[in-house]
Amino acid sequence: MQHAKPLPSLLVQRYHGWKATTFAENSSWYRRLASEGQRPRSMVISCCDSRVHVTSIFGADSGEFFIHRNIANLVPPHQPDGAQHGTSAALEYAVTALEVSHLIVLGHSRCGGVQGCLDMCAGRAPELEEQSSFVGRWMDLLRPGYARVKDIVPEADQARALEKEAVLVSLENLMTFPFVRSAVEARTLSLHGLWTEIGAGELEYFDAVERRFVPV
Amino acid sequence: MQHAKPLPSLLVQRYHGWKATTFAENSSWYRRLASEGQRPRSMVISCCDSRVHVTSIFGADSGEFFIHRNIANLVPPHQPDGAQHGTSAALEYAVTALEVSHLIVLGHSRCGGVQGCLDMCAGRAPELEEQSSFVGRWMDLLRPGYARVKDIVPEADQARALEKEAVLVSLENLMTFPFVRSAVEARTLSLHGLWTEIGAGELEYFDAVERRFVPV
Amino acid sequence: MQHAKPLPSLLVQRYHGWKATTFAENSSWYRRLASEGQRPRSMVISCCDSRVHVTSIFGADSGEFFIHRNIANLVPPHQPDGAQHGTSAALEYAVTALEVSHLIVLGHSRCGGVQGCLDMCAGRAPELEEQSSFVGRWMDLLRPGYARVKDIVPEADQARALEKEAVLVSLENLMTFPFVRSAVEARTLSLHGLWTEIGAGELEYFDAVERRFVPV
Amino acid sequence: MQHAKPLPSLLVQRYHGWKATTFAENSSWYRRLASEGQRPRSMVISCCDSRVHVTSIFGADSGEFFIHRNIANLVPPHQPDGAQHGTSAALEYAVTALEVSHLIVLGHSRCGGVQGCLDMCAGRAPELEEQSSFVGRWMDLLRPGYARVKDIVPEADQARALEKEAVLVSLENLMTFPFVRSAVEARTLSLHGLWTEIGAGELEYFDAVERRFVPV
Repeated sequence: MQHAKPLPSLLVQRYHGWKATTFAENSSWYRRLASEGQRPRSMVISCCDSRVHVTSIFGADSGEFFIHRNIANLVPPHQPDGAQHGTSAALEYAVTALEVSHLIVLGHSRCGGVQGCLDMCAGRAPELEEQSSFVGRWMDLLRPGYARVKDIVPEADQARALEKEAVLVSLENLMTFPFVRSAVEARTLSLHGLWTEIGAGELEYFDAVERRFVPV
Repeated sequence: MQHAKPLPSLLVQRYHGWKATTFAENSSWYRRLASEGQRPRSMVISCCDSRVHVTSIFGADSGEFFIHRNIANLVPPHQPDGAQHGTSAALEYAVTALEVSHLIVLGHSRCGGVQGCLDMCAGRAPELEEQSSFVGRWMDLLRPGYARVKDIVPEADQARALEKEAVLVSLENLMTFPFVRSAVEARTLSLHGLWTEIGAGELEYFDAVERRFVPV
Repeated sequence: MQHAKPLPSLLVQRYHGWKATTFAENSSWYRRLASEGQRPRSMVISCCDSRVHVTSIFGADSGEFFIHRNIANLVPPHQPDGAQHGTSAALEYAVTALEVSHLIVLGHSRCGGVQGCLDMCAGRAPELEEQSSFVGRWMDLLRPGYARVKDIVPEADQARALEKEAVLVSLENLMTFPFVRSAVEARTLSLHGLWTEIGAGELEYFDAVERRFVPV
Repeated sequence: MQHAKPLPSLLVQRYHGWKATTFAENSSWYRRLASEGQRPRSMVISCCDSRVHVTSIFGADSGEFFIHRNIANLVPPHQPDGAQHGTSAALEYAVTALEVSHLIVLGHSRCGGVQGCLDMCAGRAPELEEQSSFVGRWMDLLRPGYARVKDIVPEADQARALEKEAVLVSLENLMTFPFVRSAVEARTLSLHGLWTEIGAGELEYFDAVERRFVPV
């Protein structure tokens, strides 16, 4: 921590701008959120990608969304082995402590993590197959999605198909968590799968009846 | 995935509002970001908490921040064991593929995860000590911080002290990643520790010379 | 060049202050901008006036704005006659080489160039009408704006009206450049007209529907 | 002007941040600058490049620098032909109306305009040689600089040498303006040539005695 540097002055300036405007206009709400605690309606699991901010897309107010962001918006299957599982911890906290009503998985186009998975599965990225590759091992979670895509989808469309599979694999894995399953069955929690095309600003949701993504 | 539900209409409405305004105003920029790829300047590691959105505090533009959010903004130590490490994967992608210039860890007041860690370490939360508790195992990462706080800081101040330790533990663990260390030493990457008081909108950064958090 | 003098020591001091603070805090970002090249999102055309710095108003980061500044933020019409056109060259570089997404023309109150144009057009500044007057010939570009203002706007308001016309004339002339027009029509580029009142810090934009400037 | 769009909301937000902080803190100074007019000490001629903001490097206050920015910080020779010369107009206004004391030409590393000139002069950029190329015709101004560099400087160093020539050519051309020459000779105006290395944040000035650029 002796390596820590002061914040770049531009960000300091922007923070003061926020403090004097957005914060000042909403200070009583922020104060109340601080004293009463958060009570978010939804948890969102989305990608770290700098081009996909769910708070922007849904005009989110402070206190509304509990947000976990990781590479390619993936949820691993339930694995209560005593090891550190950051995504599972976030999920457990949201569902059992905060009791959110909605669990939204948001995928997106041009996802670097998904592209890496595709390259790895197709044998084009040996460096991702090494044990020491954190990205490679994380993207292993999407291998079941690749298996469903590789023989059916033309190669040119596989990246997009796999991005949507990343949402579906996560939805499937979510149901392996007992606390998610029981909340869904008790109808206190609903799951939602979304995918956004970042260049065109399109948003699609997974329609469980049609079994495909359709525009919202 | 047969459990997936359509998006609540409130969010559909807000999405259409965003599409007609923010997206429309910036469509050429979004299109360019989509075709050229992201080039974020900074990675931010912050908490899932619904009251702390770094994009708001810093008025972030699309494309500026690569954001990983987990419980209590924790970074585990480097552990190249072939298991799934979501935080490490995000870190690896940001530093080695995107080559971000800044790595910012943002902690905050009233953090539920940190409070859970405090309760667990003080013996007040046996349920978090169970192997099956994802939150408990995740918060184990902060035990070294608790060890530094417990005998020195008065009990009433321990939560706040531990929130700041969560930032410092993460900064320490960041340096155990060879790719982070070498980028820091090559001065192509700088680390920053921040903590925000959500009720008052205050922002502090860790001053490595003074060895304490000071207002920006 | 035998006339060149060393930099005044005050500026040398300030440079060293910047180097030790802003530059040091952002050195990895500057290094990256140097090696990867700039990728600005916007081009701004604003006045040379020392009281109007767009980088300040918008808290601009290094790399964000490609800025051309001339007297009265004027864009001449497209004139591919092989002569030297500094504004057209800047425009061509921004739109065709850098492919900026936004083109912002920023006018301002108390503009000396615009006042000169008004005086010249009203016959009160014969020295500006001489062929050898660079300011006069440059301000000829705004004569079409004066024609729209002179009989309609009361004399006391003409300076302000003409400042806004300077923005509108530039917006019109921008569309005479084939590369601007085609980018606008392809929706990869959007044009924006702004005017700022420097004493009150107000900012207005041209609303193309209402056909007038309104506060942002 | 029917094509003008509203300002992107992010810039609106940043403007409000500036208004509530920097502007609010300095409102009396801004008001005075508005009512009394500007009285800048220096004119700076620098490049449009988004990575070179002289206001940042010299921590410029509002009112201090009258700034003209064009491609490659070039000043054309005095040409009182009645045509539109934006750079000459800015120069004339600064020296004869504002009576600035310093005229600073600031060049920089990795200049796209200079690189284009180099490619054109070396026969590698036929598109820039076309009459319709505004960038090409503008960069013709630097041909005398290329002539001094081409046979003496090794090819690998020519871009940097030509960037510095861009400053020197401008200093030479400045002296062809009668109002500049007479002010310099009356010692009411001094000229300065600077060049900055953007990746390392270095700043050099032209030393007329040594006849080379040296660090400030």
